[in-house]
Parts: sequence; C-alpha cells; structure tokens
Amino acid sequence: MVDKERLAQQMDFCREVDKEKEVFRQSFLCSGSRRENDAEHAWHMTLMAMILQEYSNEDVDLLKVIEMLVIHDIVEIDAGDTYAYDVEGLKSQEEREKKAADRIFGMLPDDQRDFLFELFHEFEAGETPEARFAKALDNVQPVMQNDASEGRDWREKGIRLSQAIERQRRTARGSQILWDEVSKPMLQKNIDLGNIIGDVSLDEI
Amino acid sequence: MVDKERLAQQMDFCREVDKEKEVFRQSFLCSGSRRENDAEHAWHMTLMAMILQEYSNEDVDLLKVIEMLVIHDIVEIDAGDTYAYDVEGLKSQEEREKKAADRIFGMLPDDQRDFLFELFHEFEAGETPEARFAKALDNVQPVMQNDASEGRDWREKGIRLSQAIERQRRTARGSQILWDEVSKPMLQKNIDLGNIIGDVSLDEI
Repeated sequence: MVDKERLAQQMDFCREVDKEKEVFRQSFLCSGSRRENDAEHAWHMTLMAMILQEYSNEDVDLLKVIEMLVIHDIVEIDAGDTYAYDVEGLKSQEEREKKAADRIFGMLPDDQRDFLFELFHEFEAGETPEARFAKALDNVQPVMQNDASEGRDWREKGIRLSQAIERQRRTARGSQILWDEVSKPMLQKNIDLGNIIGDVSLDEI
Repeated sequence: MVDKERLAQQMDFCREVDKEKEVFRQSFLCSGSRRENDAEHAWHMTLMAMILQEYSNEDVDLLKVIEMLVIHDIVEIDAGDTYAYDVEGLKSQEEREKKAADRIFGMLPDDQRDFLFELFHEFEAGETPEARFAKALDNVQPVMQNDASEGRDWREKGIRLSQAIERQRRTARGSQILWDEVSKPMLQKNIDLGNIIGDVSLDEI
C-alpha cells in the first residue's frame, strides 16, 4: 500500500523547489549573456563533480558529493543568494538559511527532512572529504565562468584579490590540482588583465 | 604528475556544457513565469530521483540514475530541444543527437567520452531499471509543471491525450506508483478542466 500522505509531501516539495530556478546569482554564464540561476548552477556542479572527481585531494563517495551539490542552494529559495563578497549579507546569512532549511526541508517526511538537513550541514561545515571537494567545485565553477565572460562580474564590482582570497583557499583544501592548474592561473590572468585588483599576492594562498 | 592535456580537455568540456543553460524546453516553470531550460530541468530531475527513488518498480543504483539525468540533455546543445509531440522533429532527432554526442562527448578524454556515451545510450534505450526509472521521472516532471501552471503549454498547443499516451506509458514502466498516484490523476484533472483534449481514455495506458 502506498502511503499517500508521504507521497503528497514529497510531491509538494518537488514542486516547491522549482522556485530555485528563479533565484539568480551574481555570476554570468560563460557566454556573458545573463546571470545564472541557482538550479542551473547546481546542475553544472554535479556534472563537474562527475568529470573532475579524480582531482579531489581525498577519495570521495561521488553519490554523496553529487547529492550535496544538488541540494546546496535550496535554502536560497527563501534566503536569497548571498554574494560571496557581501560582508553585511554574510553576517545574517546563517540565520536566514537556517530558517529556510527548517521550512523547505520540513515539507518532507521526517526521514528525508533529516537526511537533507544533515547533508546541507555537512556541506556548510566543509569538514569531510566530500564537503571539501564539493566546496572546491563551488569555487572553481564561478572562476571559470568569470574568466570565460572576460571578468565582467569582477570588473563591474571592482573586486580586489584580498576579498576573494579567503574563499579561494577552500579550493586547494578540496583539490590542490584544481587550485594549482585551474583557479590560480585563471585568477592571475585576470589580475594581469586588470579585471581583478591584485592588492595581494596569489602566493599567499 | 598531472596530465595537463587531459585536464585541459575536461575543463573545455565543463565550459562547453554551460551552453545547456541556453537551450529552452516547451514546459513552463510551475509558476508559469517562463519556459525552463535544459540545465535546470536536469537539476530538477536529479533532486526528484533522490526524493522519489522508493517508487521505482525495480531496485536501482541511485548514482547511475542521477548521472544519466545529469547528462541526458547535453546533446541538445547542438540538436536543440525536440518537443515531445513534434512528429516531424522526432524523425530526425536520433541522427541530430548522434552527431551532437560525437562532438560534445568527444571533447573529453577517451575513457570519459566512452562512459558518457554508454550512459546516454542506456538512458535512450530505456531497457535497464535505472533507465526506466529515469525516463519515468522525465515524464512526471513536465506533467507536474504543466498541472501547476494551469495546463498553459497543453492549452496553447491544443494537445490531445492520444498524442501524449505513448510517452506516458513510459512512466508506469519505471514507476507504477508515480503513474497511478501522480501522473494519471493529474492528466485526468486536466482533461476534465479542458486543458487536454481527452480523445482517448486514460485507462488505455
């Protein structure tokens, strides 16, 4: 026998998360044509996890990495996207995202609510091999997009490397190779082009 | 030592697939605000696989289901979206998609190219438990969106149930429960509302 109430809760959740397609990030698509939304960002990350998993510093359970990436921005349906360099927004981000997680994950049956909560907190804490690798990808992807779209977002906001450096440190923690061979040279190229203000040295990372 | 050529191929592929965010489907978002693109559609499917896996007719390897769903529309970057009820378009779809798979998956190192090819063909053939369940979700999701957006796409195109019936049969093949409890009642409701022309009976499925 099907538990109809359980299925109804799950379908309500599946409909609710459709709203993630209407939450926009600061990053532009590689083509520069428009900013991207959270849902397509999450998809891009899952594909990058499949293709780049061999560069994780540590062995990872790929399913867990992908599940984390699929759900990592759901809270932004309520909490909105907090720009990586928005100091004021970052202060209230945790509280806003906690409330959002309570409401949105809370739509699910208890077992699935708990599973998504744990996955989300594991990602946020960044202290397991899977979370470290997922966070590395979450940094590499916008650097790749910004580089492909000629640094438009960095230029428009006048980003200084000192603002980006703390976040970029996470890339090497998850993947030294993606830091050394992808993000670091892309950032250096964009400093050289004047798209990022090079107020500190990349070697500090 | 990092194989720099391999990594460069992988990063070129990761940039190339960003274009999937610019391929639009016929389905509207649940809010009805705009049509959805292939990338956000694929993301939605992966999340639905996580939440609804218990309704698969057969036991499935969830990672495989998710990987299939992540990559199932990449070929549309070149081949475009073929509407489910576009009879002329469907005739040339296979050839167009084969060429697209050759070019896009062919950007990857050979082992990963072969892996994505096999995954894509397995999905297309729909003859394994994972492919059957993935295809069921690929049908349930647009029915859910169409129902949520008051049947707008069906109404605008004057869709008859007889056009939809072959495709809808795939849902029950992957998940009898999602057919009986989700898609079938949603379709019946929209026939009753006049959003779908009920020229045949749903019980034929």
